[in-house]
Amino acid sequence: MAQADIALIGLAVMGQNLILNMNDHGFVVCAFNRTVSKVDDFLANEAKGTKVVGAQSLKEMVSKLKKPRRIILLVKAGQAVDDFIEKLVPLLDTGDIIIDGGNSEYRDTTRRCRDLKAKGILFVGSGVSGGEEGARYGPSLMPGGNKEAWPHIKTIFQGIAAKVGTGEPCCDWVGDEGAGHFVKMVHNGIEYGDMQLICEAYHLMKDVLGMAQDEMAQAFEDWNKTELDSFLIEITANILKFQDTDGKHLLPKIRDSAGQKGTGKWTAISALEYGVPVTLIGEAVFARCLSSLKDERIQASKKLKGPQKFQFDGDKKSFLEDIRKALYASKIISYAQGFMLLRQAATEFGWTLNYGGIALMWRGGCIIRSVFLGKIKDAFDRNPELQNLLLDDFFKSAVENCQAQRDYFGAHTYELLAKPGQFIHTNWTGHGGTVSSSSYNA
Amino acid sequence: MAQADIALIGLAVMGQNLILNMNDHGFVVCAFNRTVSKVDDFLANEAKGTKVVGAQSLKEMVSKLKKPRRIILLVKAGQAVDDFIEKLVPLLDTGDIIIDGGNSEYRDTTRRCRDLKAKGILFVGSGVSGGEEGARYGPSLMPGGNKEAWPHIKTIFQGIAAKVGTGEPCCDWVGDEGAGHFVKMVHNGIEYGDMQLICEAYHLMKDVLGMAQDEMAQAFEDWNKTELDSFLIEITANILKFQDTDGKHLLPKIRDSAGQKGTGKWTAISALEYGVPVTLIGEAVFARCLSSLKDERIQASKKLKGPQKFQFDGDKKSFLEDIRKALYASKIISYAQGFMLLRQAATEFGWTLNYGGIALMWRGGCIIRSVFLGKIKDAFDRNPELQNLLLDDFFKSAVENCQAQRDYFGAHTYELLAKPGQFIHTNWTGHGGTVSSSSYNA
Repeated sequence: MAQADIALIGLAVMGQNLILNMNDHGFVVCAFNRTVSKVDDFLANEAKGTKVVGAQSLKEMVSKLKKPRRIILLVKAGQAVDDFIEKLVPLLDTGDIIIDGGNSEYRDTTRRCRDLKAKGILFVGSGVSGGEEGARYGPSLMPGGNKEAWPHIKTIFQGIAAKVGTGEPCCDWVGDEGAGHFVKMVHNGIEYGDMQLICEAYHLMKDVLGMAQDEMAQAFEDWNKTELDSFLIEITANILKFQDTDGKHLLPKIRDSAGQKGTGKWTAISALEYGVPVTLIGEAVFARCLSSLKDERIQASKKLKGPQKFQFDGDKKSFLEDIRKALYASKIISYAQGFMLLRQAATEFGWTLNYGGIALMWRGGCIIRSVFLGKIKDAFDRNPELQNLLLDDFFKSAVENCQAQRDYFGAHTYELLAKPGQFIHTNWTGHGGTVSSSSYNA
Repeated sequence: MAQADIALIGLAVMGQNLILNMNDHGFVVCAFNRTVSKVDDFLANEAKGTKVVGAQSLKEMVSKLKKPRRIILLVKAGQAVDDFIEKLVPLLDTGDIIIDGGNSEYRDTTRRCRDLKAKGILFVGSGVSGGEEGARYGPSLMPGGNKEAWPHIKTIFQGIAAKVGTGEPCCDWVGDEGAGHFVKMVHNGIEYGDMQLICEAYHLMKDVLGMAQDEMAQAFEDWNKTELDSFLIEITANILKFQDTDGKHLLPKIRDSAGQKGTGKWTAISALEYGVPVTLIGEAVFARCLSSLKDERIQASKKLKGPQKFQFDGDKKSFLEDIRKALYASKIISYAQGFMLLRQAATEFGWTLNYGGIALMWRGGCIIRSVFLGKIKDAFDRNPELQNLLLDDFFKSAVENCQAQRDYFGAHTYELLAKPGQFIHTNWTGHGGTVSSSSYNA
């Protein structure tokens, strides 16, 4: 009777795709849903011809599971999670495992982890990123909680997770209690920051350099071959290129008002609560708040003069490169701030966090996946005790190289790493004079 | 027997000073303290020769009060407030009034307000600002809660509050439930913002213009005769001038690491929770967080090159005026954001807030007191429904005038209000050429 390796409750698209992903990797999954008819629909359609089995009740679902029983919840964060846990506990034995794969608040996960530990049940709160596509073909998984559960779910989790490099899975044990969901929360906050940086680069391209839509698409395509190589830069190029049915670009038709589900906001609030200056994510969240005040902005725009637009008359190519470097430097700062928050949370809650592992988990499968995160993994491999990303030699030089860009504005000077002590001003644009605002002369 | 107009519990300096202030205004106050010996000490010393009476127990204190009984709590925010309320309720009658004058969290005040309303007790949560000095000679008082209490405490509260202009008291009814403490919280957040703006102006004076300490003191003294006339600008001049016993300036000897009690942090968190872009206070709070990471900053400073210092070679006087305008414009933005947060809170909690009154309450007595707040009061007098400060004609022009400053940098142009449509670039510094980066020509 007990034939299934794992059960999954909650047959929305994410749940269905995770089941099919597990099935592809040879695991027998038992599917359950509160509205039981959904189970039959799923078996008759999406799961047709697979090894997936279904259950008409939690009791039946549990009876079909090998021990220790492994049950993934993919239901709405909040009360629904507590309700299912309450129904499951009487049906389970000591050592059985409940995994919450939803977007739960990390404090709830810590609470559930402690409550269930007292009842002999191993609870895991796992961040799942990558959307529907990721769930189906390889998500980023960030499991944390009761570590005794890890050996029993490791094979399945690392099996279905996204792979990078020479097949390293984008899934590892994050840490204690709510650490998995905390890390997922910070991931989303960093995602807000990355998107805001791209928006600001777009703004400079469009309104300062006056670049056309396809020109900007090309720029992001080029940037995606540099240190900025990442999913978000890639899709930005595609979004810019995308043409509507009428052959016109779609982007300009989109209302400039962004919504938010809350995890970015939670990240900024945690930063404030634990006293960590995560300024970039904070500004990104506030930028979304402002964007959503569309009516107020329209009203204000009728009354308030904005800054005066002006024609850029410098070297377009080098200014574009300056924007790219500014984005790269800002991205480094943002991730440094994000890891500062993780470090502080570890101190606050007495967690032991796997920083390098976290970078690797984000390296692929998720929205912020990038080559860049591989460099962060390298930094923590070089020094697992690294206090701040900016103190790693790679990122230190990266930021300092980007600083050369400051020389472009207001005739600052820069010091060549090769020529310490010599402060040089370069006439980047070929005009504007060679006077340096520094007291030094090259 | 019943002789006292009001009782005050909590004889720390703030409490003692509020009592003496009330006594000066002809009110008979009954003093009580958990450690009863403090009552005798107070009567024998600070309150000697006044009409202040004391009580050895809460029972005795209540028995000495005229009805409806009025009791001010000035005890540590949190459990101590709930403990005293619990002890007082059995001793009170329907219609009696408990006022919490501590730094309570506004949600606690809302909870207490509802609980006590059910018991027939009128609860008031009042922000009190101005420190020990203000408490003694005229604080800013921000009472909110059960409005039925207002007629019974108005005379006392407005009597002891700071006065401005032709004697208007810096105290009025703020609004329902926790509104008084919410407004006090936002006051503190704005205070964080004002201080951060002053710090950044100081930084530009010191590190860009290379001004000496006394030179900077003079600048702030001059600024205090402009639209920036305020308590914080005034004391900044005094702090800069202040010389240590050794005849050297004290300021440079102070460790650049700021603490915080939490109300600024609460303001930024509320802004995130209610989706209001209160970016300036947010950055001010994060700046304090960063300043407190002194050890990490020292470690980083040994490894990371900061931006290259440079000699300013422009017109010092006009740049200083630009800094002043930048501070003024930023201050306007900050207060506009603060009032946006108040407006959103009113929507969230169904409060009716007295915006003009709030500006007047902050006009004097408190840390952010300024001539500027009188202008905000005027704006809400002109239009009580004003949606955003920036939409008021006075502040609209003020911000637009400050924009002229943008012309200083990078040869932007500006449009004279008197000459619409004509975009002018001024050669502020007398050198650097007259080429405008605008496509327009003056």
